[in-house]
Amino acid sequence: MTGQRSDARRNRQRILAVAEEEVARHGAAASLEQVARTAGVGSATVRRHFPTRQALLEAVFRERVQSLCGRARELVDADDGRGALLDWLGDFLEYAVSARGLADALTYEPPTETPADHSCGATLEEAAAPLLRHAQRDGAVKPDVTFHDLVTLVAGIALATEHHARPAVQADRLLALAVEGLSPTGPEPHRRSR
Amino acid sequence: MTGQRSDARRNRQRILAVAEEEVARHGAAASLEQVARTAGVGSATVRRHFPTRQALLEAVFRERVQSLCGRARELVDADDGRGALLDWLGDFLEYAVSARGLADALTYEPPTETPADHSCGATLEEAAAPLLRHAQRDGAVKPDVTFHDLVTLVAGIALATEHHARPAVQADRLLALAVEGLSPTGPEPHRRSR
Repeated sequence: MTGQRSDARRNRQRILAVAEEEVARHGAAASLEQVARTAGVGSATVRRHFPTRQALLEAVFRERVQSLCGRARELVDADDGRGALLDWLGDFLEYAVSARGLADALTYEPPTETPADHSCGATLEEAAAPLLRHAQRDGAVKPDVTFHDLVTLVAGIALATEHHARPAVQADRLLALAVEGLSPTGPEPHRRSR
Repeated sequence: MTGQRSDARRNRQRILAVAEEEVARHGAAASLEQVARTAGVGSATVRRHFPTRQALLEAVFRERVQSLCGRARELVDADDGRGALLDWLGDFLEYAVSARGLADALTYEPPTETPADHSCGATLEEAAAPLLRHAQRDGAVKPDVTFHDLVTLVAGIALATEHHARPAVQADRLLALAVEGLSPTGPEPHRRSR
């Protein structure tokens, strides 16, 4: 029994590792048959562990989403609330750029949260929204900016740079531009340009 | 002959008008058969005017791209370089949000331009880059920001808000956030946060 269980665990981990590479390369349209072939298992084994494509995608994203959540918890007690938020957004963007499909998945997230919402977006928000609140308490981010705004902006930057020659470089450049502002009006914190 | 030519012109315009609605609704994957049915013409007539899907999409986008170019030329002599650029970016975003497929098409644009490049991105750049240069001369936008940065940012905002309940509202919100800056460091124009 124990041997069978550890075999199953190893299979699951191998499938997940291969799936992560396939999804990074081909996005949410990654071929499950190719995942099975590369992992050296049958399609039935893939289906036993991940009954649907969505289940596999969620598992692929969940491991990294959990690691982004862990990173948020490490940063939450930093003295520099602005720096902590920007560090985390940089990590989030790096992953969104490398993981085709996650950014697209996040843009489908509803902007409301429910107690039963275990989606990637809700999981990220629970862990990382305290970083935004800290930066807002410090006066570094305006009070009307929502966590959903940040997720949507980062997802958009990842989607728009996907086909660039050097996606991560252009994505970092655009995040820096959005952080500093394309054309900030200056010190009045509530003046709106448009 | 004249009657035939004006019939053909009317058909072409009707097909384009219907195609614009279909592309707005379904993006670049819009059904050409549905376009033919709604326009009340045969598929052969659609193919005679637009031999490929790409030719139809380019025609759909080109009319609005030309109108965005016209808007840029109207704004280029405005006294307020910053206001002119932001007005134009708002118009561009409004169209990118309403026209599914354009934002996606623009993210494929190469960041380099060639004299023979008649793509939507190159056409937009030729007309609207003077607005960016004006705003940069006025000191309202940093000198290292490129027109390509602006196009990519706007396309990303349009892509990320596509599935929202009110895409235009959220897109405007994110553009305003990126213009003012999520967390600008202040008056030092060349200080970078990351």
